[in-house]
Parts: sequence; C-alpha cells; structure tokens
Amino acid sequence: MVKHATLPRNQTGIDTVLGVLKQQFGERIQNGKAICEQHGHTTTWIENQPPDAVVFAKNTQEVSDIVTVCAAHRVPVIAYGTGTSLEGHVNAPAGGVCIDLSQMDAVVEVNAGDLDCRVQPGVTRRALNTHLRDQGLFFPIDPGADASLGGMAATRASGTNAVRYGTMKDNVLAVEAVMADGKIIRTGTRARKSSAGYDLTRLLVGSEGTLGIITEITLKLQGIPEAISSARCSFPTVDAACQTVMSVIQYGLPVARIELLDAMTVEAVNGYSGLDLPLTPLLLLEFHGSEASVVEQAETFGALAEDHGGEGYAATTTAEERTKLWKARHDAYWAMLQYRPGAKAIATDVCVPISRLAECVVVSQKEAEKLGLVAPIVGHAGDGNFHVSLLVDMENPDELDRAAGFVSWLNGVAISMDGTCTGEHGIGQGKRKYLKDELGEATAVMSAIKRALDPDNIMNPGKILP
Amino acid sequence: MVKHATLPRNQTGIDTVLGVLKQQFGERIQNGKAICEQHGHTTTWIENQPPDAVVFAKNTQEVSDIVTVCAAHRVPVIAYGTGTSLEGHVNAPAGGVCIDLSQMDAVVEVNAGDLDCRVQPGVTRRALNTHLRDQGLFFPIDPGADASLGGMAATRASGTNAVRYGTMKDNVLAVEAVMADGKIIRTGTRARKSSAGYDLTRLLVGSEGTLGIITEITLKLQGIPEAISSARCSFPTVDAACQTVMSVIQYGLPVARIELLDAMTVEAVNGYSGLDLPLTPLLLLEFHGSEASVVEQAETFGALAEDHGGEGYAATTTAEERTKLWKARHDAYWAMLQYRPGAKAIATDVCVPISRLAECVVVSQKEAEKLGLVAPIVGHAGDGNFHVSLLVDMENPDELDRAAGFVSWLNGVAISMDGTCTGEHGIGQGKRKYLKDELGEATAVMSAIKRALDPDNIMNPGKILP
Repeated sequence: MVKHATLPRNQTGIDTVLGVLKQQFGERIQNGKAICEQHGHTTTWIENQPPDAVVFAKNTQEVSDIVTVCAAHRVPVIAYGTGTSLEGHVNAPAGGVCIDLSQMDAVVEVNAGDLDCRVQPGVTRRALNTHLRDQGLFFPIDPGADASLGGMAATRASGTNAVRYGTMKDNVLAVEAVMADGKIIRTGTRARKSSAGYDLTRLLVGSEGTLGIITEITLKLQGIPEAISSARCSFPTVDAACQTVMSVIQYGLPVARIELLDAMTVEAVNGYSGLDLPLTPLLLLEFHGSEASVVEQAETFGALAEDHGGEGYAATTTAEERTKLWKARHDAYWAMLQYRPGAKAIATDVCVPISRLAECVVVSQKEAEKLGLVAPIVGHAGDGNFHVSLLVDMENPDELDRAAGFVSWLNGVAISMDGTCTGEHGIGQGKRKYLKDELGEATAVMSAIKRALDPDNIMNPGKILP
Repeated sequence: MVKHATLPRNQTGIDTVLGVLKQQFGERIQNGKAICEQHGHTTTWIENQPPDAVVFAKNTQEVSDIVTVCAAHRVPVIAYGTGTSLEGHVNAPAGGVCIDLSQMDAVVEVNAGDLDCRVQPGVTRRALNTHLRDQGLFFPIDPGADASLGGMAATRASGTNAVRYGTMKDNVLAVEAVMADGKIIRTGTRARKSSAGYDLTRLLVGSEGTLGIITEITLKLQGIPEAISSARCSFPTVDAACQTVMSVIQYGLPVARIELLDAMTVEAVNGYSGLDLPLTPLLLLEFHGSEASVVEQAETFGALAEDHGGEGYAATTTAEERTKLWKARHDAYWAMLQYRPGAKAIATDVCVPISRLAECVVVSQKEAEKLGLVAPIVGHAGDGNFHVSLLVDMENPDELDRAAGFVSWLNGVAISMDGTCTGEHGIGQGKRKYLKDELGEATAVMSAIKRALDPDNIMNPGKILP
C-alpha cells in the first residue's frame, strides 16, 4: 500500500466533539472500527486512515451543526458520499469526524422548462437519471462509478460524456455549502449565466471538501436525444486513432463519447465480454441528435476514420448492439482484473492537449513495458484524458515500487506536454506532490485562499495542497 | 450622472509611485487630464473618476513591476483594455495608477490541432478573429463591442453566441495573472479539463481586476461552421416569443443565437435600418452546422415557432440577407439613440430562468411605462438574459431619478425570480448594492478571499464588493 503521513491529532478536541455530537445524533453517530474503516476506504492503493466517528446527516442544518461543533474544538471534518474517489480523498490523516451525506438523497425540485434541478448531495447519478427519465431529461456526466452528485461536484468529475457535455464545472449552476465556520452559503441562482461577483460555484466545485461541504447542488439538465447511435472502429496504431480523434474535434463533429482502448485493453475486453474485436487500438463512439443528425455524424466519422486507416468501421442504432458495445467498455475494469488474476487495478489519470495524446499514450506503453508492468490504457480521447490501469501484484514490494515510479514518471510527462496530472480523478492525497510541478506559484494562491476560508485547517485536512 | 463615493486617497504614496514609474517608463507614463479622464471613462451614466496616471505596459514583467511598486506604497492599480465596460469598472475612486494593456496585443500562439490559442490581454475579439480566419477557426464570444479579451475575461463577458458556446468562463482554459504582490501566476495548462486543485482560472475570470491583472489568456477556439443560416420570426406577444425560446431549448436545438427584440426595439430598428418588420416582438436566430444540419435546424425552429403563433417566419442562408438582418440587431444601440434624439442610452442587464423571461420582460415594460420612461428591450433570450436600454434625457434630474429607481426595481425583480442582477455586464460600481441581495452570506466569503489575496485593497478598489 502507498502510505501517506498521519497528521497531529487533537485528541482532546475529538473526545469533546464526539461527546457533544452523541447528544444530538444518538444512533446516527457511530464509531465502530468497521464503519470507520469503510468511510476511510479508497478504491485504490492508498492506505486506510479512518476517521474517529461517522455521523449520518439528514439535512443542511445538521451538517452546519456538526461543522460548528468541530470548528469550536478544531477537529477535522471529512465529507463522504459513496466512497468511489480514487486518490484518498476520504482518508482522515488527523482523525476527526466523517459526515456521511448518503441519506441526504432527495431530488428537491426539477424545473423541466428551464432544464435544471436541485438535488441533495447524496443523490447518485443513476438515481437522478431514473428520477428524470419520465420527463425526457437526463444528467449527462458519467464518471463510470455510480457516484454521488455531491462527491462528483467536490472532485470536479467528468468521464465519457465530457467531450460533448463538459465536466461538473460546466454543469453545476450553483451550490449550497457549509463553510468552515458552520455558515451556510448559496453561491448562485438558477440564472443560466451571471457576472455577479467571484465565481464561488467554480471555487467549491473541485475543492474536495477542503473549503466547504456541498449540501445542495443546482444542476443543468439535458433533453434525452431523439436518437442515439454508436460506432466502433479499429486502427493500426494509437497514433492513427488519435489523429482521427483530432480530425473529429477540428471538424466540430459533436460526438457524445469517443473512447480509446489500446490493444491490451481490447484483448482484456474480448476475453471478459466474449467479443472478437481485432487486437489493435479501438475507438468507441456515441452520437446524440435527431435521427438525421446521428446518421450524418456517423457517416462523417466513417470518412474521417478512413482517412487515417480505420478498419472494420461499424455504426449501429439498435439499442441491443449499442448496449453490448458500451457494456464492454464499462466492464473494462473487470476485464482488466480477469486479464491478470490476483492483481489489483491501480487507476491513474492524466490529461494532455489532444495533439500530444498519441505520443503520451505510446511513451506510457513503452515505459510500462520497460518497467515490466502490465498496464492497459483507456482514454476519453476527445478530451486528451487517459487512464493507465496498472495491474499490480500487491504482495510484490518491488513491483509496487516500479508502479509508484511509473505514476510519478507519467505525471511528469503529462505536465511537460502542457497537460495536467489529473484530468478527472482529483488531487486528494495521491497527487499532492505533483500539484506544484504543474502550477508553481499558483499553489501559493490556493494556500492563501485555504487559510482565509479555513484558518484552523479543519476541512478535509491533508488533501490537495502540498 | 450617477455618482459613486470617492475613497480616501494615499497622496504621498501616489506621488512616490509616479516618481518611481516615471524613471522606468518615461514617455509611457502619462498624467494629462484628457488621457486620465479617458481611462476612467465609462460608456454609461456613472460619473468619471480618473486615475492619477496611465502607464502603457508592453509585457507581463512590466505589469508585475508596476504592481510591485504600487504594492510597496499601497497605491491602487486599475487594469484597462478598451474601456467598453458598462458599470464603472475602470473608475479610480481612490485615484492611483491605470495600466493600459492595449499595447499587449500579440496573438502568442495558435494551436489549430488542439483548437486553442494564447493571447495577450489587449487583443480584441475582432483582431483575434481576423487572425484566425485563414485557419478556419474562430473565437465565438461576442459581447457586441470590440472589447479586449483581457477585459472580456475579467468581466466574464458573453453576448449573443452564449446560448451555444457559453460565456468567457467556459472558453478560457487558463490565464496568466499578476497578483497584488506582483507575483506572476499561471492558473492552468492547455489540457481541455483538469481536476488539479482550486479553479483559479474561474476565480480570476469575472473578478474585474480586483484580485489580479490578467496578462495572458489561453482560449478555446471553434472551427468555422461549414454552414451558417439565419432566420427571423414575429410573434403576437413577448410571451409567445419566449414560449418558443423555451421550446427550442427543451428540444435541444443547438441554436447559435436567439435574440429577442421587443416591439419598441423593432420600431427603432425599422427606422434606423430601413426595414419594415411587423411592429410586434421579434426573434432573430442563427444556426451553425453542416449544410444539412442548418436546414434541419431552421425547419425544426419553424415548426416550434408555428406552435406558438409565430408569423412571417423567414429563413435564409445567403450571406447578404443574413448580414442585413444581423446588422440591424447590432445597430440596435444606434437605432435606439435615433428613436429618442438627444437621449443617452443607459444599458442595464439582468438574467432570469428562461421560464420567467416573458414575465420579467412584460413587467419591465409596464414599470417603465408607469414611470414615463422610454425603455426598449433586447434579450439574449436563450439564456434568459435581457437588456433594458433606458433612453434618458440626462438634463432632466427627475427623469434620471426615475431611471435609477427603475434599475433598482428591476434588479430586485430579477433576484426575486431566482435570477441575477447581472448576466454579463458585471458588478463594477453600479451593481455593488445588489450583490448582497442576490448572494447574501456568500459575499462575506468573497470579501474574505479579497482580503487574503489583496490585503491592502490596491487592486481596482471600490468594485464588486459592498
């Protein structure tokens, strides 16, 4: 496991706070070992650092009450949604109180006429889309996991649809948040745009609970497209696939998804999902629009792919075929685990300008091979964002070291290409050491904001900032 | 004129700073009355508060040098692009140094493959689009005025294209900025998306020079559409026009522009541009896409408009007709001035959820009539954003009072409809008093950020914050 330093504990403060909260929350505050470890768990290789207790909050005022007590005694507060973050975001290196928001799961209102809605932070994206379906609406951000919308906002999540619909930063109109002093603020209105003051919405989106706890989110919605079609195309090389992606973006083709699978991932997916895709790099696409528009988009893509040596291009509008294709993509994680039985998949992500994507993927494949690592790659190619899933034998310390070395190397390469050390997973604990490499003096500005808004460093301490 | 309070002047500091800057900048620092007044000018009714001197900076290091000297002596610094802001953004209520960035007008690089570019802040949007045209690219944000991109970023500008392409917040990938201590930071990379730390890009976009001075901007670009077409349609009522706009948005029709002109504006435009449009509310539209797509979009719009009583629908793809139609829209300001000769046009803007747009426009028309004001309305209807242009006899104090009362009333109405007191003009001096009505306790968080990043309040003092 990758260990991150524990921070000094304020045991007296913690004891006092747990006593006070027990009075208010009774059975809704728990401190059993299993529940605390579960709330400090991460889905990656970072060691568990459990909080001292978990409180299940039911409304914003309760969150404010908890933060107010913790602030009075300088005790850390960590917000928890579904625990699907990947960089140790919910660990508690100084102990403290975890606020589980999963019971704040109401869709507060849907304004179909304005294509917006207000939700509590514990609503998951699938639950929201189930709620919306009858009204012909959907929320487009799809990070893969059925994450909570509060967590998705807090980590500035995105995923396969971002090439068309943007990331959480683009789809949150406003948030309500509890700040480090317990005060409740609302950062915006339901207006589609505003020039009124500092953009606190975007400051809280991606702040990973280190500035405030998001207790309600106003989201933009989309109408479910009249037609959806899918396509796949194999390419002789990663470069040919990426050149096609660049053509698509330059052409302005409004693809809804354009995913890259490298040959190793295709091999894993074939094995797991019973497919027989050619063992070469693959692009998977989805088109949204009117019936005529998706046909036109698919034809245009076919022509662009052919220009770059695409082979076996197949478009489909039947739901069954489409589901099969995308199910294979969504099952890639499980396919990878089966590809190397007994290994754990350590997902890391970087994002580079699209013109550098092919180069970055290819040098990553070479570096992994040089280090003797098994490292299939999938990418949200339209954004220049890709994931290397290191399949690591966690019992082999030498292999773990090589994997850690690879991650460090990859972040350096992405930054050297004018890219970022994380396109969508966030900084958490795992990427703190790279933030300054990427943004230099700007991290001092971030620290100044953190000190101003959370002077006692109680909001999710030990995350983001170096 | 509307007066805003002057703030205490640090005359000793100002004298010292002007002496020091004279050494470095020679003829490039000027303090003549005319040039100072021109750099404090606003295009609205807010009284001029000129700076003590204007420095014409040529590069980022010079901006840093100026800010460093001003910081040492606690002297205000105001950034200036083209002076097209509308709410007193460039006034100097405490005096100080204006930095004119218009000579920092280089397009530093264009990365056609990645659809991005880096520009200095003095590049205007027209200059950028002229630079890009040969490469088949364009920058879509169009606030009307030929504003500088630095100013557009600083005020979170948008305009007629925002319904499709978003605002400056959506089209700036990163900025370089000089902060209040003179340090130069870069807030991001050329990656299309990132989850790396606090979103300082979005914090600086819209901060109106109160947190830092933007010295370089990395912008997203778009490919020039294969086809562009326009359309117009008259409606019996504002409500019918706005219902059509809601249908368009809900349908997901990707209109590039959808502008509302009320009957009074149509009358003014007819007179100025020699048109004979029916004297009823009008929607003007523009569609971008492939040849087939723009035809399909125009047909779909026609059907939606018909459902709501649209009349005289006319679509056109010829450049000549399109230009004529949009020229009339762009000339609306001049048409209004001619509509009431001798009056000044005081433009104010609010933005509400689209479902409230018709109601907000109609009550605005009634309130203006009740107050005896001449107040044509144009709106970026797809965003719920509209402008009331009060045609005011500036020599009539009573009429000025009524106009000021109208603006105050309108902001209250927009906020009561879960909208914002400014969709795109910004807060500046003119809307400071409404910010707290809109965002309440969140303004205290803005003030905390301001104090943390600019403890001596030298960056454009007297703007945004109450």
